[in-house]
Amino acid sequence: MFQIENLGEAKFKSPLQLSTVRGDNIFNFVDDQDRLVYDLSLEAYNHCLANNKEPNCLEKAGPRQNLYFEPNTITAAIVTCGGLCPGINNVIRGVVMALHYFYGVKQILGVPYGYEGLNPEMGHNFVELTPDSVKDIHQFGGTILGSSRGAQDVGVMVDTLAANNINILFTIGGDGTLKGCNAIGEEIEKRGLDISVVGIPKTIDNDIDIIDRSFGFETSFDIAGNVLRDAHNEASGAYNGISIVKVMGRDSGFIAASAALAMPVVNFVLVPEMDFQLEGKTGFLEALRQRLETKKHAVIVVAEGAGQHLFQKDEIRKDASGNIQHDDIGIFLKDKIKDHFKEIFPITVKYIDPSYIVRSAAANSSDSVFCSGLAYMAVHGAMAGKTKFVVGRVNNKLVYLPISAVTQKRKKIDLESEFWFAVLQSTGQPFTL
Amino acid sequence: MFQIENLGEAKFKSPLQLSTVRGDNIFNFVDDQDRLVYDLSLEAYNHCLANNKEPNCLEKAGPRQNLYFEPNTITAAIVTCGGLCPGINNVIRGVVMALHYFYGVKQILGVPYGYEGLNPEMGHNFVELTPDSVKDIHQFGGTILGSSRGAQDVGVMVDTLAANNINILFTIGGDGTLKGCNAIGEEIEKRGLDISVVGIPKTIDNDIDIIDRSFGFETSFDIAGNVLRDAHNEASGAYNGISIVKVMGRDSGFIAASAALAMPVVNFVLVPEMDFQLEGKTGFLEALRQRLETKKHAVIVVAEGAGQHLFQKDEIRKDASGNIQHDDIGIFLKDKIKDHFKEIFPITVKYIDPSYIVRSAAANSSDSVFCSGLAYMAVHGAMAGKTKFVVGRVNNKLVYLPISAVTQKRKKIDLESEFWFAVLQSTGQPFTL
Amino acid sequence: MFQIENLGEAKFKSPLQLSTVRGDNIFNFVDDQDRLVYDLSLEAYNHCLANNKEPNCLEKAGPRQNLYFEPNTITAAIVTCGGLCPGINNVIRGVVMALHYFYGVKQILGVPYGYEGLNPEMGHNFVELTPDSVKDIHQFGGTILGSSRGAQDVGVMVDTLAANNINILFTIGGDGTLKGCNAIGEEIEKRGLDISVVGIPKTIDNDIDIIDRSFGFETSFDIAGNVLRDAHNEASGAYNGISIVKVMGRDSGFIAASAALAMPVVNFVLVPEMDFQLEGKTGFLEALRQRLETKKHAVIVVAEGAGQHLFQKDEIRKDASGNIQHDDIGIFLKDKIKDHFKEIFPITVKYIDPSYIVRSAAANSSDSVFCSGLAYMAVHGAMAGKTKFVVGRVNNKLVYLPISAVTQKRKKIDLESEFWFAVLQSTGQPFTL
Amino acid sequence: MFQIENLGEAKFKSPLQLSTVRGDNIFNFVDDQDRLVYDLSLEAYNHCLANNKEPNCLEKAGPRQNLYFEPNTITAAIVTCGGLCPGINNVIRGVVMALHYFYGVKQILGVPYGYEGLNPEMGHNFVELTPDSVKDIHQFGGTILGSSRGAQDVGVMVDTLAANNINILFTIGGDGTLKGCNAIGEEIEKRGLDISVVGIPKTIDNDIDIIDRSFGFETSFDIAGNVLRDAHNEASGAYNGISIVKVMGRDSGFIAASAALAMPVVNFVLVPEMDFQLEGKTGFLEALRQRLETKKHAVIVVAEGAGQHLFQKDEIRKDASGNIQHDDIGIFLKDKIKDHFKEIFPITVKYIDPSYIVRSAAANSSDSVFCSGLAYMAVHGAMAGKTKFVVGRVNNKLVYLPISAVTQKRKKIDLESEFWFAVLQSTGQPFTL
Repeated sequence: MFQIENLGEAKFKSPLQLSTVRGDNIFNFVDDQDRLVYDLSLEAYNHCLANNKEPNCLEKAGPRQNLYFEPNTITAAIVTCGGLCPGINNVIRGVVMALHYFYGVKQILGVPYGYEGLNPEMGHNFVELTPDSVKDIHQFGGTILGSSRGAQDVGVMVDTLAANNINILFTIGGDGTLKGCNAIGEEIEKRGLDISVVGIPKTIDNDIDIIDRSFGFETSFDIAGNVLRDAHNEASGAYNGISIVKVMGRDSGFIAASAALAMPVVNFVLVPEMDFQLEGKTGFLEALRQRLETKKHAVIVVAEGAGQHLFQKDEIRKDASGNIQHDDIGIFLKDKIKDHFKEIFPITVKYIDPSYIVRSAAANSSDSVFCSGLAYMAVHGAMAGKTKFVVGRVNNKLVYLPISAVTQKRKKIDLESEFWFAVLQSTGQPFTL
Repeated sequence: MFQIENLGEAKFKSPLQLSTVRGDNIFNFVDDQDRLVYDLSLEAYNHCLANNKEPNCLEKAGPRQNLYFEPNTITAAIVTCGGLCPGINNVIRGVVMALHYFYGVKQILGVPYGYEGLNPEMGHNFVELTPDSVKDIHQFGGTILGSSRGAQDVGVMVDTLAANNINILFTIGGDGTLKGCNAIGEEIEKRGLDISVVGIPKTIDNDIDIIDRSFGFETSFDIAGNVLRDAHNEASGAYNGISIVKVMGRDSGFIAASAALAMPVVNFVLVPEMDFQLEGKTGFLEALRQRLETKKHAVIVVAEGAGQHLFQKDEIRKDASGNIQHDDIGIFLKDKIKDHFKEIFPITVKYIDPSYIVRSAAANSSDSVFCSGLAYMAVHGAMAGKTKFVVGRVNNKLVYLPISAVTQKRKKIDLESEFWFAVLQSTGQPFTL
Repeated sequence: MFQIENLGEAKFKSPLQLSTVRGDNIFNFVDDQDRLVYDLSLEAYNHCLANNKEPNCLEKAGPRQNLYFEPNTITAAIVTCGGLCPGINNVIRGVVMALHYFYGVKQILGVPYGYEGLNPEMGHNFVELTPDSVKDIHQFGGTILGSSRGAQDVGVMVDTLAANNINILFTIGGDGTLKGCNAIGEEIEKRGLDISVVGIPKTIDNDIDIIDRSFGFETSFDIAGNVLRDAHNEASGAYNGISIVKVMGRDSGFIAASAALAMPVVNFVLVPEMDFQLEGKTGFLEALRQRLETKKHAVIVVAEGAGQHLFQKDEIRKDASGNIQHDDIGIFLKDKIKDHFKEIFPITVKYIDPSYIVRSAAANSSDSVFCSGLAYMAVHGAMAGKTKFVVGRVNNKLVYLPISAVTQKRKKIDLESEFWFAVLQSTGQPFTL
Repeated sequence: MFQIENLGEAKFKSPLQLSTVRGDNIFNFVDDQDRLVYDLSLEAYNHCLANNKEPNCLEKAGPRQNLYFEPNTITAAIVTCGGLCPGINNVIRGVVMALHYFYGVKQILGVPYGYEGLNPEMGHNFVELTPDSVKDIHQFGGTILGSSRGAQDVGVMVDTLAANNINILFTIGGDGTLKGCNAIGEEIEKRGLDISVVGIPKTIDNDIDIIDRSFGFETSFDIAGNVLRDAHNEASGAYNGISIVKVMGRDSGFIAASAALAMPVVNFVLVPEMDFQLEGKTGFLEALRQRLETKKHAVIVVAEGAGQHLFQKDEIRKDASGNIQHDDIGIFLKDKIKDHFKEIFPITVKYIDPSYIVRSAAANSSDSVFCSGLAYMAVHGAMAGKTKFVVGRVNNKLVYLPISAVTQKRKKIDLESEFWFAVLQSTGQPFTL
């Protein structure tokens, strides 16, 4: 079901000195037929066995023995789109190193400022990427290529790729970027061009479907967790002190929930997946009041997309990337809380929005390892001629997936999951919220 | 001129096993007459010589041979007021350790939630402080005692001190707190009570007059400096990207300026001491345009009290501590910049306000050492019966100063100083701004 | 195959307000029959299909609907053994919180200084653990309970458990500790006692078999990665500068390899799994010479257990935990390198051993989340009466495994794996080493 | 007395747009006659007054109105010598930025690998330094130029300076380097060359005489302080656990003492300035035994140069920089402690040597600000034709000092000082040790 498309027959021998047999202490080329079962519950397994049906499988990522592209003749390009996320520079570095050192690719171009850089009208110029120019960039947050939001004309972008003899385009970006990448791939196919397009999913919200987690996510809640500790200092430093921390999470509350688990000083986690009410006996404000009564301070983490049902909306606004623009739940909560307690008892509210601090951080060690892995695998897949695919980790293994498989819907917190149950247990917030 | 008041004759021998002679490798008791010249320019020196006049001097801090209080009979109390600042817990810890281990004081009380805790009506209870209860608190930001803003009735507070047989009150707080401490000291004097009051100046803005710097300040611009690096990642990650970082600094721009010096990625530092204009040829917006033209991104640091002359004000608002409440220059700048460039070229603006993250951090090593020193010296001075004094560092030496000497005016950046010149040099921002 | 033993019938209803049906947004109790396939390759699936055989499965961790123990009547104890590892305090905290808040267990004892604390002859006293006493400990490295190495008499330890009416013993430790835990469990069985014993695998080397990774491991290579950056500064700061960093890894080189991947400034990773030679054309010293010739500096990471085949050994020494004591490969390498290059060209060698700095760190956010998860699951399993089991993560899911399943052999780096291939690619070290 | 030498008359007008009058909000040029009193005790003042004698003064650092060098015609060079220290790259960056942006100097050369780079026989090549090549280096520890220890022939080095038309040489190094710099300056004088030599004192031991502190020192004890926290985790994690941390400090124990003050978990600080004994009633081992009896763990910090009187020495060994090579007090102590307690009670000893981790760190914010200041002032002084001088901070003000004034002896901890008294108070270690 998760079938990757190929540009054509892989006719060139890989320059990698790998093996094809077990037991010689040399890594083996990975075969397109090496697959991993997706759903590892025994129930699913037995269902397949009973119906004599092959289970839903994923294609293992890794270096292929035969390549579609002749490495030393091609040009590759890298583009980074959307908001910042820890690890982008690590992925750029990994792709450049892999292309240069593993395969001997001679020309690697950096596309400046996202998809804008593929539109000649914007007047940006490609930059040449070499091992020397990228060797230290993993120590910096942000993206050395710059980024932008929003779509560009697909035809124009394909024109640019063709005009510059680009054979492989690595796109690092979120849902919108990946859809754009797929559209580019389709246009390439229509024109019969020899260009592979690859996505490396970047989403600080961790909301790409199917994959375990996206790069930069661990760093994000690491940084956010430290801010929660600060927020706790602020809350407990005042009588009936309340700290509200707004973190990223447009449709999915993973950062809010993970940071709260990581720094267990949080009393309430509000995420987009929840339909909580403010007022009433089972409402948030009453739960907050009870907390203050007993403990005299409270820490609240709220994802930016949470509580949107609390606003009255006349129209839906979208940003340049096509994401729905949310009303500011953080400010809204702060005001509602202040109003509510005005008649009850004096409180002190501190509001913290660390978003840019979180997303512009350099990758931590775990994400650094992860980013190299994704980058290397993206290169292996592209050299073999695969196209319109992403690299991701599923069940703790690196795999290739069709772009279309991961952009059908956003991944969200399952409120019935072990993960959310752990959040409820750690915070002590009422189930019924 | 900087004359410290005493409660009376120091009749008790200090339990500290110190020396009074040089050369025996044992620290000497410090005499009340040990003084340090305040103005160390040769010019000032020659002026004194010519006029046969004693130079303005400061009293050296340190343990006195004779004590006013009999250590094992007294009760001391500690109160922390105003906003958070790195190092408060270190000072609390140092005071407790010094009272207990150096002098053998048996009872040390923590006053909860600032001056509120000295008002019985608020219903807070004192907490007992012991070496065991404070031994790890230096590793945490915030204040274990809690804090509050605003004044309480001086008479009521003195009643509380007397009712609880408190002999020494250590107050950790800023300008308003120190004035309150002085007022308590005067009321004590009027009533003829035997209570020493001591101030340990806490101001994240570093705006206490005369002293070199206040505790927590180094940590503050250390944390703020890291945020500037993040801001730079955001700015350079977008075409004509602009990051605005608002930091604390109500009347003085020390954090903004020092953080910019520490992380030299900043292009504009706007502080309350400057009378900059937005519009016109020498205005800020034009300087920003020129920066973007050449470099395509810009980082701006603005102190919260900067640019207040740009607002039209009908009335002056004050917060609970009596500080003037400023209009939000950060949001104002963001809006003005967006408006201004609408007609010029597209820009991307990111606004970051890390205030609570900065002030709730734990002290770094340098501040940790500094806080212990201040705490120890505060204890030595109080045990000797000094009152209405603060401990501070002047010309890199720890001294005692009358509270009244440091609360006459706020310390501000001298725009003609070497310090501000270094900022201009480091940022490259126009002198004329 | 991975079958968990139970103490007996689970007759008490869990106090947790969970569900048993999907779709109500409330987490479901997990059934003992909920299983996950272990080997998720399609090949393994087809093999099962062909042989009509059930695949090897793992038991899902999670709260059970019925409990063996009546929560409010029992006493639980926690013991931490062996060397330090980031996250021990997080696990202790998680176990205490889960026992207290989820189940209402009234008495929780901390066993001091490892298994020593279960031997009355050592004279250590149990400490009472409460939510209040553990609430901040996750912010500190080390273990608040203290630890020790080595075995104690199993009979004596079971005597102590019985004498103190302990119903559940949580043991946090490595291979030796887990074997000890299993032995305690067997002795309990033999005596027919009603005591559950649970292992939470702790190994900074990440060498526990079957499980994805052990807690603290990510933090470890995060810290070690920073040291590698320092080592690179030292190496490149001198002409022909060489830095050797020795990290933990007695039988398995996971920290060395992961840290090198995380901080890609490393040129050689030497691990116990490799049979490298020093001398000769394909030896390490020649590879090092070539590196210096071209780049003028080199960074080497060596696991403590690497290169033991290079020593001449008369006898095998063991430490108190029964681990083989290795000759010091770090010092050995340093000396060999100095000798070798004496005749070739001048070099500067810096030797760094950060072991204690790595293992005594506080857990990072990812490990913090992981530790809570393990702790909660350990508690759920024990309350249901399971015994002689460990909690671990396999294929990214938390499961229960018999202790005996994970102590049969140590997990090692597979030199034919994708992981090791990534290390070779990242460092550029010769395959043939 | 602290008189700076000049190359000759300053005939060129400074390009800096500064003022000469107060009150115009523009920084004033600093005059060579602007001086600061060195000893600020009232006693010293009165002594001068009584003897009608001018006090000992220091020359204020700062930009001069007239320059000796015509900026756009000259070549400057930078060399970094000796061991690493946090902040070297910040100083390099500051010097380059100041030369380029403030004065318009066109050519700036980096001398590779210390004084070796001024000896053509070593075959190293100068590197061109530009604002673009140094703009990010402050974020990295180490030195981008490389370093080396030991002297080179002064005549050869002056030949190299002359042959390359170098007009200013900035040397960043410690005691030996500064003496070398002075010797170069004297040879230049002898030859009548037009070359200014400037020293920027670098010593992680903080042992340069007269100046308040040297750059990188604060960062050093910040890092070392964190290691002490780790050491405390190790010590308290074992019954009678002892951690020994050896830090740098060949002749002066400032890092050991400051780190212990910063992280107050230390029980013993052993520094070169102390004549402690191991054995006997007032010996260290007995004090350690008493500590263990009461608290069951102990943390010891020892400077590498401490306790050298405990070794029997036949000959004095020196390293390439001419520093006396010490016997390893850390290992020695570890062995002595193990021996001593063998007969008393079981102990666990952990030995940590974080030296390279400390010295290769990137500068913290405070040091970053300090390094820029030093660099700017070094450039101002050199452009004015001053030579054989260092820039330093004295009484919290930046001043110029003759190299010869600071190299006469090493700064050491005064055991009768407030600083050492604070250490004794913080650790509780016996005075008599």
